[in-house]
Amino acid sequence: MEKTLSLNDQAKAARLAANELIGLSTLEKNKALQEMADALEHRQKLILSENKIDLANGRNKNLSSAMLDRLMLNEERIHQITNGLRQIAALPDPIGSGLMEMKRPNGLDIRAVRVPLGVIGIIYEARPNVTADVAGLCIKSGNAVLLRGGSEAINTNKIISSILATAASSAGMPEGAIQFIESTDRGAITELLHLRKYIDVIIPRGGSSLIKYVVENSTVPVIETGAGICHAFVDKSADKEMAADIIVNAKTSRPAVCNTIETLLVHQDIAKDFIPFIVAKLAACNVELRGCERTRAIYPDMAEATEDDWSTEYHDLILSIKVVDDINAAIKHINTYGTKHSEVIITNEYTSAQLFQQKIDASAVYVNASTRFTDGFEFGFGAEIGISTQKLHARGPMGLNALTTMKYLINGNGQVR
Amino acid sequence: MEKTLSLNDQAKAARLAANELIGLSTLEKNKALQEMADALEHRQKLILSENKIDLANGRNKNLSSAMLDRLMLNEERIHQITNGLRQIAALPDPIGSGLMEMKRPNGLDIRAVRVPLGVIGIIYEARPNVTADVAGLCIKSGNAVLLRGGSEAINTNKIISSILATAASSAGMPEGAIQFIESTDRGAITELLHLRKYIDVIIPRGGSSLIKYVVENSTVPVIETGAGICHAFVDKSADKEMAADIIVNAKTSRPAVCNTIETLLVHQDIAKDFIPFIVAKLAACNVELRGCERTRAIYPDMAEATEDDWSTEYHDLILSIKVVDDINAAIKHINTYGTKHSEVIITNEYTSAQLFQQKIDASAVYVNASTRFTDGFEFGFGAEIGISTQKLHARGPMGLNALTTMKYLINGNGQVR
Repeated sequence: MEKTLSLNDQAKAARLAANELIGLSTLEKNKALQEMADALEHRQKLILSENKIDLANGRNKNLSSAMLDRLMLNEERIHQITNGLRQIAALPDPIGSGLMEMKRPNGLDIRAVRVPLGVIGIIYEARPNVTADVAGLCIKSGNAVLLRGGSEAINTNKIISSILATAASSAGMPEGAIQFIESTDRGAITELLHLRKYIDVIIPRGGSSLIKYVVENSTVPVIETGAGICHAFVDKSADKEMAADIIVNAKTSRPAVCNTIETLLVHQDIAKDFIPFIVAKLAACNVELRGCERTRAIYPDMAEATEDDWSTEYHDLILSIKVVDDINAAIKHINTYGTKHSEVIITNEYTSAQLFQQKIDASAVYVNASTRFTDGFEFGFGAEIGISTQKLHARGPMGLNALTTMKYLINGNGQVR
Repeated sequence: MEKTLSLNDQAKAARLAANELIGLSTLEKNKALQEMADALEHRQKLILSENKIDLANGRNKNLSSAMLDRLMLNEERIHQITNGLRQIAALPDPIGSGLMEMKRPNGLDIRAVRVPLGVIGIIYEARPNVTADVAGLCIKSGNAVLLRGGSEAINTNKIISSILATAASSAGMPEGAIQFIESTDRGAITELLHLRKYIDVIIPRGGSSLIKYVVENSTVPVIETGAGICHAFVDKSADKEMAADIIVNAKTSRPAVCNTIETLLVHQDIAKDFIPFIVAKLAACNVELRGCERTRAIYPDMAEATEDDWSTEYHDLILSIKVVDDINAAIKHINTYGTKHSEVIITNEYTSAQLFQQKIDASAVYVNASTRFTDGFEFGFGAEIGISTQKLHARGPMGLNALTTMKYLINGNGQVR
């Protein structure tokens, strides 16, 4: 029944679907989301058998056990996926909400209303749950989506997207609203990045080399996500125990994710006391430490941090430590090496908190709380499409609103200028 | 006193200036804007003498009289420029305003506040008033700006930007907040488009070839502006006189600007009556007409519109005319050939108005009013940096808010996840 379309034809079909999606009501979209969830549940066995193929291929390719775990589905994980789709159905629909309304002196009514972006291209890596999450968020926000998953999960992604597309279409969504791109070579990405005529935005989700490639090659507008070199700065007035709790949480609770800290900055006035204290706590969690010269003068038993360490996202239980002269040196270090993601100061001084939040250029600037809270669910958005580390359009955790734009509706009775 | 910096050094200096601009108060920025206006007035003679050099060069290069007029300054035009800066000083400061605030169940306070984008690069063509307008808008919104004007106005732009930079700096703005890029070759643009490390956004203002070049070559995020293939659709229920007023205004009041219409679409049920009526009105305004086959069957005395006409922004007193079967055919034509700028339906049917505003994919969708109102001043923004024809970040007329982003400020008392 299905024939393979060229990428250009897929994108064109997505554009036509987007034109139809604009006019659908919230009830119609929610019905589709429910039926998409039902369909995944009904065809669970088929999904698991395709997933087994990916897992076998992964073992043959010697993927790490962490990678295999990310790839693996079971009944519980499929339940989480379908539950996610039902939660998206329950969220408020962003489309059509008014952003401003005014009557001009000449009698013109000008309104700004939220509308879908149109066609969204997502390029993502291993985890197959992203296929369903993103498809659900796009349908809810009235967008057509082109999904381009990684080669490791290709069979799982194909079956999930095919089930979702069929269910969406039989529930009244336009054909082409959810499409998966089957080619796994980089040429397909390059082609996608140049289909400006049909695609409104490309969102890369994955490692820094994927994001860099997309940013450098796309003529379609891009929303960058997920690169996170985050820092904690312990000010001289910090509560020692609170600082330790935050640092341990921000480093160890899930070291592979982007809102984890990579570098600890310590005010010189407390370094002599604080560094041995925090080193003991981190060592107990098996964190490998790399220190600057001043850190190692206080605590010699750790590796030397090189210039590279300040600009590395470890994705691992590794932390670099630097002693800084004062808060201004901390701010300068962060604005130089940070990726504008999440940054925290632990302090008890009002002016330090104020200065840090004003001067740090990042999407989320914390006082006395773990950077791990930078997350769509923790922010109460009910869903997350990624965490934007750029300044245009969306910054920080992106919920449904980030998948929308606006248009002005102007109503008159013959006004001319 | 001044030495020529490399483009990289200029961008780096702008970045450092941007870090300082974040912390300045509205009063400090307004004082600088007033002093920038004063300085231009005091040095008016010098500006006019540099402008004379550009005009002489332009005449030698056989620039059109329209181009020379755009280039030309006189006392009145300088007054308009300084007046513009004083008006910007009087506008509300967007920076620091709260966009949302919530307390999460765990006690975290999360706020989103408006902050400057950082460093803005503007690439623009002939008109020298843009230099001062853009510098003023950037200072007001706390951004550093790299100005790259066209070669025709190079001497005028250099002196204006130099006066503004000196005045801003003596009024307390950081050095490097306003910088002009002196090189007029395209290589300088290409270099600018790759300085992601220092520049947050590039805004091209000019012809479609400039915009295309920027979009295709920039790794810095871009806000596209100003390409306008706009349409008027006369529905079968339209008030004939109102339709004529709107069409004549939207085509003839300022044919070189982007919110002018290029194509008129006429519902077939009224074409026989309406086309001769509107042709007479447009001919009286010296508008050259190009018709589709069905138009010429009704009114043979006009040139044939070719496929090219539907995708041409004339910038001139030329209008193409097409008879369409119904509103759906009009919507399809507009969504195919339009540049997502401004579109209008003239109708007296409620459902037609509703359908048109829902289905047309453009920044401004009008019912019964001229497309010429798509303008920052007409929308009440008090200033305009350009008209965005893209969907990310800003759409339609861009005021000061379009030069800002936001950041989340999260305040806790030791929360971990």
